[in-house]
This record gives sequence, structure tokens and C-alpha cells, in this order.
Amino acid sequence: MSPRPPLVTFLSDFGLADEFVGVVHAVIARLAPGAAVVDLAHQVPRHDVRAGALTLWRASEWLVPGVVLAVVDPGVGTGRRAVALEVPSAGAIFVGPDNGLLLPAALHLGLPTSAVELPDNPRAKGATFAGRDVFAPAAARAAAGVPIGELGRAIDPSTLQGDPIPEPILESGEIKTEILWIDHFGNAQLNITAGHARQLLGAEVTRARTVRGTVPVRVVGSYGEIEADHTALVIDSYGLLALSRNRSSASSAHDLRPGQPVWLCPQSDHPR
Amino acid sequence: MSPRPPLVTFLSDFGLADEFVGVVHAVIARLAPGAAVVDLAHQVPRHDVRAGALTLWRASEWLVPGVVLAVVDPGVGTGRRAVALEVPSAGAIFVGPDNGLLLPAALHLGLPTSAVELPDNPRAKGATFAGRDVFAPAAARAAAGVPIGELGRAIDPSTLQGDPIPEPILESGEIKTEILWIDHFGNAQLNITAGHARQLLGAEVTRARTVRGTVPVRVVGSYGEIEADHTALVIDSYGLLALSRNRSSASSAHDLRPGQPVWLCPQSDHPR
Amino acid sequence: MSPRPPLVTFLSDFGLADEFVGVVHAVIARLAPGAAVVDLAHQVPRHDVRAGALTLWRASEWLVPGVVLAVVDPGVGTGRRAVALEVPSAGAIFVGPDNGLLLPAALHLGLPTSAVELPDNPRAKGATFAGRDVFAPAAARAAAGVPIGELGRAIDPSTLQGDPIPEPILESGEIKTEILWIDHFGNAQLNITAGHARQLLGAEVTRARTVRGTVPVRVVGSYGEIEADHTALVIDSYGLLALSRNRSSASSAHDLRPGQPVWLCPQSDHPR
Repeated sequence: MSPRPPLVTFLSDFGLADEFVGVVHAVIARLAPGAAVVDLAHQVPRHDVRAGALTLWRASEWLVPGVVLAVVDPGVGTGRRAVALEVPSAGAIFVGPDNGLLLPAALHLGLPTSAVELPDNPRAKGATFAGRDVFAPAAARAAAGVPIGELGRAIDPSTLQGDPIPEPILESGEIKTEILWIDHFGNAQLNITAGHARQLLGAEVTRARTVRGTVPVRVVGSYGEIEADHTALVIDSYGLLALSRNRSSASSAHDLRPGQPVWLCPQSDHPR
Repeated sequence: MSPRPPLVTFLSDFGLADEFVGVVHAVIARLAPGAAVVDLAHQVPRHDVRAGALTLWRASEWLVPGVVLAVVDPGVGTGRRAVALEVPSAGAIFVGPDNGLLLPAALHLGLPTSAVELPDNPRAKGATFAGRDVFAPAAARAAAGVPIGELGRAIDPSTLQGDPIPEPILESGEIKTEILWIDHFGNAQLNITAGHARQLLGAEVTRARTVRGTVPVRVVGSYGEIEADHTALVIDSYGLLALSRNRSSASSAHDLRPGQPVWLCPQSDHPR
Repeated sequence: MSPRPPLVTFLSDFGLADEFVGVVHAVIARLAPGAAVVDLAHQVPRHDVRAGALTLWRASEWLVPGVVLAVVDPGVGTGRRAVALEVPSAGAIFVGPDNGLLLPAALHLGLPTSAVELPDNPRAKGATFAGRDVFAPAAARAAAGVPIGELGRAIDPSTLQGDPIPEPILESGEIKTEILWIDHFGNAQLNITAGHARQLLGAEVTRARTVRGTVPVRVVGSYGEIEADHTALVIDSYGLLALSRNRSSASSAHDLRPGQPVWLCPQSDHPR
């Protein structure tokens, strides 16, 4: 009789046009009637496991303690494993396909000490909607207090799939970073903090070189500090640097895309 | 004091840009504070009663027992009736306009034994938002346990509007099916199961003829079994056959639309 | 142990592609586990404070008693104040930036008698997501019963920012109105009721003049009363007149945009 109901957060690439998300909610509402179910994002690009993994990674600390249900699952119905894993130090249980979607967020929170492979649902009418037939029931049961060990067959957590978040690299006096995410406002998040950049360069960043060209930048704390028609590196809400503009889209202005490299450069004797 | 709160599922063509969906939720939260309200879909194409009816039909068994609130209502404020109907065998109450939206799902669950016409809301400022002013209060009161007979004036359930789901037809040794739905991933659901197709043909399906041309197909259980750049008939999560591709859109590849015919053909002596 | 849980409604320009909305929900779920949190709209155009303010204004009476969390905040991290304000006569608490977003709705409900400036969140990793770090915690605490005076430093409610809803103006025998909103169905809401228009003109409206041309119109109560390919003034669900068509978009037909003027004209001796 806790005053705080269990929290289930739910991410997918289902989109919002069809009934997929709603049916998953209905399944959870039956099996874990006391749980609060929060939609994290359902417009992850179709089949884009990496974009989903990065979204979970960014949001993870606000989702725990709780159950995280995540379904970006192009391999549904094939050999990829359906899993649940637990990070007890964070009170976190992740449920989803074992295709790299879950592990970056889980490792960000702590060490997964146990994992199970979820069985198929013998009552499913087809094998294509594991979100409804396999993952939602497992997440709901976990939210209702069923121990993870009762959800499936134990597997070795060290066999779970997942690529790490890329590290920034110092190359010829510049830092090679990667665009992790373009958000709704066109901000391009890089995989580096302001402090880390300053430490690697031994100086402030003054230019950003994208695949399209070089932009003079300075590091600021808010969008409102950026002059009109200029681009800057904002310290974003995750503490990372993001290429941003004030009331317009840095992504559109510089044709930026997730996965592209961006080089951060210190003051130079040969300004552009 | 049931441990399982009543479930209200909500479908509309309101879209998510405006406040329509949120205001309906607020109305329900006031009148049925213990209910779990789940959004099923709000991006049903504007005024497309049939698309909404098929969505409810597909999802119906996951929505009950519970109250289903559905509003795709181009005739709002005119002579069409506002109704609630009950399928007691499924613990289901449907609330919405009597324009064909509700009946396919209701009949899929069982026999509607009672129905009422909902009165206008005398406090409404206009006649154009029955979702907020008429349907949501009725759905909330039903969820709060008010018997359907107290929601309005009894009408004969046999007078409710609704076209049946079309049946596949055997024509000259081929099965004429209809595309019921194109989902977010571009899968084109047909109105036939694998078993029914095999029974009608007395053979496996090997070709699908669309309005654009003929495609060789085989029946598979998951998207991952489909070869690159091929199209197959997947047994989808409702048990129906769907024209699908692996990690791409069958709808885009073959220019498929809901309502189009697709002929399923057995092995022939004159392959294409 | 109230049978009616507190209601928190939430509006933003965050969109639904990213995790922003979900993370705010997760924060509220932790701090106010008994609250019902309803999404009002998250697709307010980016940085469009006025569109957000009008959405809140329209919906306000369905949102109270309760807490209204609203975040359209292009000045986040700069000098604009983060505030909470209370309209006790309506049981309403508004939480958001003091940039004109909150006041039209608040004043529509009653007189704000107290307001506070919310402090920064010292644990935030950046200054760019006040929705998560400042506003959501304040809204959740208000929903959990914390008095507004404990949420921040008292400020004078008369210093809060906000432009009033524009009034229609009688000019040379015509009424100059303004398009407040284009909804999902293409209806263009004007800032005048049918009764007010009749009173100002001393006659029925028979023509609407937009920036593109003049359209013959009559006032009707429902979309279904409008003849095919005609445009009419419908009394919408807020009691205001809206340029509308039956099963198609008046906005598309006449190239209408929010903020444009529309002149309403009485019967004339010189019909177009």
C-alpha cells in the first residue's frame, strides 16, 4: 500500500496514428491497475533502434525507480531475444527487445545484475506485435511487483546487446564530436560537456566545423543569449553542448543530421 | 472499491494539435475520477467514419470490459443520433454518434442488448463539440457505474447504424479481398486469415494482384523472414494477412490504399 | 482522502517527437502521485506564446479547479520570470513563464490575488529545460497541496505580463474581427459571438470580407447545415463565430491564418 504508485514509462516507434500505443496501455491497465503509465516518445523514427536507445539514455534518470517499456523492434518474431533486465541500484527494470535499445540507458544507471528472456505468448494471433503480446504483459507484471526472475528464463546480463555512447576524440588539436540528437526546436546535441571540451582543448571553443562548413561559436547558458542569426553552443538540459540558435533551428540553418561529426576548434591564428 | 479501476478508451478524429482531446480528458477526470482513460487513436483521418470503425473493430477485444468513447462525427449537431449501447456479454459500453462508427466493434464482441439516445447538453455554448458536451459526460457517468438506461431514452438496438466488415469473395479461382488498413509501417491489412485463404483456394497463395500489378508472395509469420526488396503476406497481430516488407513500406512500394481490392491467386500454369 | 484527485493540465510547444513531455510527466508522477495529469496540447507552434495563450483561454473553464502547467518559453534561462499565480475564485493555479502565456486564461476565470516568482533549480544540469526543472516540480507541489506562497517569492500580481483578447471593432458599418485560431478541421474562429455581431450591426451578417476577398455567409448552428462548397459562420463550441465549411476546410478554401482581420458585413444595396 505504497502512497507512490509504480511508474511505467513507455517508448516505441509505433507512431500515434494507429491503435498500437493505446492497446498497449489497455493491456497494462488490466494487469497493473495501480501503475502510472507515462508515454516517453512514440515517434522514434521507424526501426531506428539507435535513436530510441539515445532517447532512453538521455531520459533514464527521470524514469527510475520504475519500469521502462521500450519497443523499437524491426526483428520482431525472429531470433532476437525478448528480454527484461534489472538494475537494482537504480530500482530500474527494462523490458524490450535485446537489440541494443535498452543497454545504453541501463548502463547509464548502473550495473544490470539479472536478466531474463521472455517467453512467446501462446495466445497471440500473430508474431508481429510483441509490444502488446509479450512486452506489455511483462512490464505490467513487473510493475505489479512480480520479481523479474518469474518473468522468464534467466540469461547472462553480460550477453545483452548494446553499443556504447561514442566518446569525443582529440584530433590534431580539434575535438571530433558526434551529433547525437536533433530535437523539436532544431538544437543539435553533441556528445561532450562544456567542461570536457575546455579540458581537452586547453582553451575555449571558438569555431565548430560541420560537414557543411565552419561556424564561429561561443558557449552560452541559454538560447536568449544568442545574437540574432548567430549559432552558439548552448549548455543543454542534459549538461551537453548543443549547436543552437535563438528562436530558430540550428539544424535547418546548417543542414545538421544525427550521426554527423562536428569538430570543435579553439582560437586559431588563422581565423576564417 | 474494486482494485481494478474502470477503463475508458477514447478514439477520435480530433488530431493532437488542438485542445479537443485534453478537454475531453478533463471532463472525464471530473466525473469519473477513478477511471483509467486510455487514448486509442486521435489521428483517424478527418470525418473518416469507416477508418475509425475499423480501428475500434480491430482493437475491441483489448478494450473490454470497459467504456469505449468514440467520436468521428461529421454530422454533429444534425439529425444523427448520439447514442450509448451495451454489450453485456463483453462488459462493454460504447458511446458515440450513431453513424456506423460503433457497431462493427460492438457486434464483434457480442450482441448489443440495449441502447439509448443521449440528450443534448442544455449548457453547451454551441452544437459543434458533442465529444466534450454530450459524449464525454455520458462515458464518464457509465464508467462511474451509472446504468446505461439512465443516460438517455431507450431505443431499439436493431436500429443502430453500421456496415459489416466485408467478406472475401472467391471469383474465378482467385480470392477478392479488400485492404482494410495501412498502418504506420506501411503494412496493408487484408480482410482474410491465412487459414481462410488456404481453405478457399485449396492451395497456398503465391501471387497478389493489386490495382497496380501482380506481386509474387508467400505467407510468413514475421517481417524478418521477408527477403530484401520482396513483399510477402505476413500473418499480422490480428491473425489477418497483410502485404508487408522487411524494414520498409509495402504501401509505398505498391501504392496501396485502404479500400482497394487485392486478389490472392494460387499457383498457376502461367506464371507472370 | 478526497474522492476527486487533483487535476493538472499541461500545455507546451514541446511537440511529441522528443522525450520532453514524458519526462515532465515522470517528474509530476513522483512528486504528486495522486494527481491526474491531462495533456492539453503540445503542438503549439514553436515559441508561439500567443497561440498557447489563446488555447489556454479557450479551454480554461474546463481545467478548473486544478493546476494548469503551461510552457511556451522562448526566453528560458534569461530575465523573464518563472511564476505561479492563483485565481482562488476558480480554484485555479497557473504555473509557467511570465511572458503573456498565462494571464488571458487566468483573467478569464477571475482575479489573480497572489503570485510568486519561482526560484531556479540548483540541481539542473543546464538552464534550458525549465519545464522539467522548475515548472513541473512547482506544479506537482501545488497539486499535492503546497500553498502557492511556499513555492517562491511573492510578487505583485498586477505586474504579470499579458495582452488582452482583442475586441471586435465597428468600422463604417462593418465589424472588424480577428481570426484567433484555425483548428484541426480548418475552422477559423473569430473574436465575436453571434449575438454581439447582430447587436453591433443591427442586422444579420450576410458577407465576410477576408484579406483574399468577400464570401457570402449566413450564421448556422452546425456544419451539417452548410451547403456543399459554401462557407458559413458556425456558432462554435465556445459560442464564437467561426468561418467553416461542411466536411472540408474553410482555412484552405480561403487561405485563412490566425491573426488576419475578417470584416463582417450586413445586407447591402450593392451585393458583390
